[in-house]
Amino acid sequence: MSTAPFLTLVQESLAEVEALLAAQADGYHPDLQAALHHLLAAGGKRIRPTVALLMGRLLGAPHDRLIILAAALEMLHTATLVHDDLIDGALLRRGMPTLNAQWSPAATVLTGDFLFARAALLATNTQSLHVMRLFTQTLAVIVDGEIRQLFEGGAFTSSEQYEHRIYAKTASMFELATAAAATLAGAAPESPLYETARRYGYHIGMAFQIVDDILDYQGDSRQVGKPVGNDLRNGLVTLPALVYMERHGQDPDLQAVLQNGGLYDAQRLNALVRRIRESGALQTAAEAARQHIAAALDALEDLPPGPEHEALAALARYVVDRDF
Amino acid sequence: MSTAPFLTLVQESLAEVEALLAAQADGYHPDLQAALHHLLAAGGKRIRPTVALLMGRLLGAPHDRLIILAAALEMLHTATLVHDDLIDGALLRRGMPTLNAQWSPAATVLTGDFLFARAALLATNTQSLHVMRLFTQTLAVIVDGEIRQLFEGGAFTSSEQYEHRIYAKTASMFELATAAAATLAGAAPESPLYETARRYGYHIGMAFQIVDDILDYQGDSRQVGKPVGNDLRNGLVTLPALVYMERHGQDPDLQAVLQNGGLYDAQRLNALVRRIRESGALQTAAEAARQHIAAALDALEDLPPGPEHEALAALARYVVDRDF
Repeated sequence: MSTAPFLTLVQESLAEVEALLAAQADGYHPDLQAALHHLLAAGGKRIRPTVALLMGRLLGAPHDRLIILAAALEMLHTATLVHDDLIDGALLRRGMPTLNAQWSPAATVLTGDFLFARAALLATNTQSLHVMRLFTQTLAVIVDGEIRQLFEGGAFTSSEQYEHRIYAKTASMFELATAAAATLAGAAPESPLYETARRYGYHIGMAFQIVDDILDYQGDSRQVGKPVGNDLRNGLVTLPALVYMERHGQDPDLQAVLQNGGLYDAQRLNALVRRIRESGALQTAAEAARQHIAAALDALEDLPPGPEHEALAALARYVVDRDF
Repeated sequence: MSTAPFLTLVQESLAEVEALLAAQADGYHPDLQAALHHLLAAGGKRIRPTVALLMGRLLGAPHDRLIILAAALEMLHTATLVHDDLIDGALLRRGMPTLNAQWSPAATVLTGDFLFARAALLATNTQSLHVMRLFTQTLAVIVDGEIRQLFEGGAFTSSEQYEHRIYAKTASMFELATAAAATLAGAAPESPLYETARRYGYHIGMAFQIVDDILDYQGDSRQVGKPVGNDLRNGLVTLPALVYMERHGQDPDLQAVLQNGGLYDAQRLNALVRRIRESGALQTAAEAARQHIAAALDALEDLPPGPEHEALAALARYVVDRDF
């Protein structure tokens, strides 16, 4: 993705964002600095900052505040990942050891808290109370979604529950990125321009997570060694399984996932994954992602023209085309 | 403390704060609501909201924003306690089971995160970017202090380290309470009025923690069943031990605490606690707390007169006189 055309426009800005992120533990405990640099070096696509930078520039947001917003978004995302990985017991992310694989749970909890504090400080430094409010509301939505998943499991049978989950997990932060960028450009909350920007973010976020969920059935070329069928194994029913369920609700292995909250028999799991792939469910799920992208492109129609406009359109198409 | 005279002035306001706190999980997952109500029912003295309410009223801050600030402070305090208790593995706080005694670590981490999000949203709702900035900076200071203690232990031998620790742990939030209250009253950051209010909060916070540290050697009548000498057992050197160390640096049991980061032999621990008590170190430490209170009362001299002024003076004296 480092050569994606929509990235060239914001390459210099992303370097500024990176420098601001790296400075966030300066003056604090050396181990906090080391943890932050480890997390930043693990990379990631910086897609949330990219979306915010492109939308903000298209709408005329001041450069300096936009850089701060972009850094705040990535810092918030990183903070949630640190606590997520601890909760899931994940040992690798993006091919690098997670913090909790190397540190104690206590140190991992506190590092996540520190990153939340710095994300909130960056959000404050955008000098917009509305941006600050969006940040804190989004954090509550994300955490509420994780609490729901923890207490209720992920073995959904309704698409409403699925949509709620992926909104909380992913789309809420993309929506935050574009709504906050519009705010910095002077758009009043709930004004038509603001709503249009927000809608673009919402839809690419929903599509992004649906595609992630499809990749779990295909093998994700970006995440070498990540096993196929991971979600189902852990009892997480995503869109491909929901689509398959509509047609094959009595599949005994799928029933086992729903009843036991997971399926740890590798042979049965692989056979179920194969049946879901062969059922055409991935294509149906991909169609749902494409509809979100169409809605995002539709929102773009109401925004001003310019190179950032084209880049946002390219980014939207990239979200669904990246691996299939 | 429910009959302390400085409380009667803010009793009605505290009821408003309580209602606002209780509403913070409305609309979120039922288990989050249950956790919040459990935490609020555990009580606590609400001393941070009380300080903010008294200072804000004395300086003329608008009532509604002051209530929100007071709730934000208590919510931030509660969030840090939830993660603290998880990290320490504490099973009781204020005589009630902690969240982590009943819930999984994952649920406890996420509940703390949710409370941070709600504290930040409340802080945003004060409509002051400076208050928001104070909040996020204070959270970073608190977490940095906990990280330091985790990595470096608490077996200090210098009073600078001790002062840094109790500032991060306690005084920073009292300072936040009074500086934020002054801000809502219209005092510009770093103006003389703002600095005076901040100084009052700083000094009562420092005194508050020193007294807490002394109570660990005396037995705290408010915390039934809390064993004496808990800090030393866990390798935490506080002011009484630092004072004793100046005169009896070669005490072999104290050396054992420093070298091993704790002392788990109950007989040796009790004998060391007794020697520290008999050395007069608690009186010297109490004198240090009284100097902070004198500095707080000195700061009050520069603030307007009125019933809140008298209540703040009474509160300052209460901090050192509460149990000895």
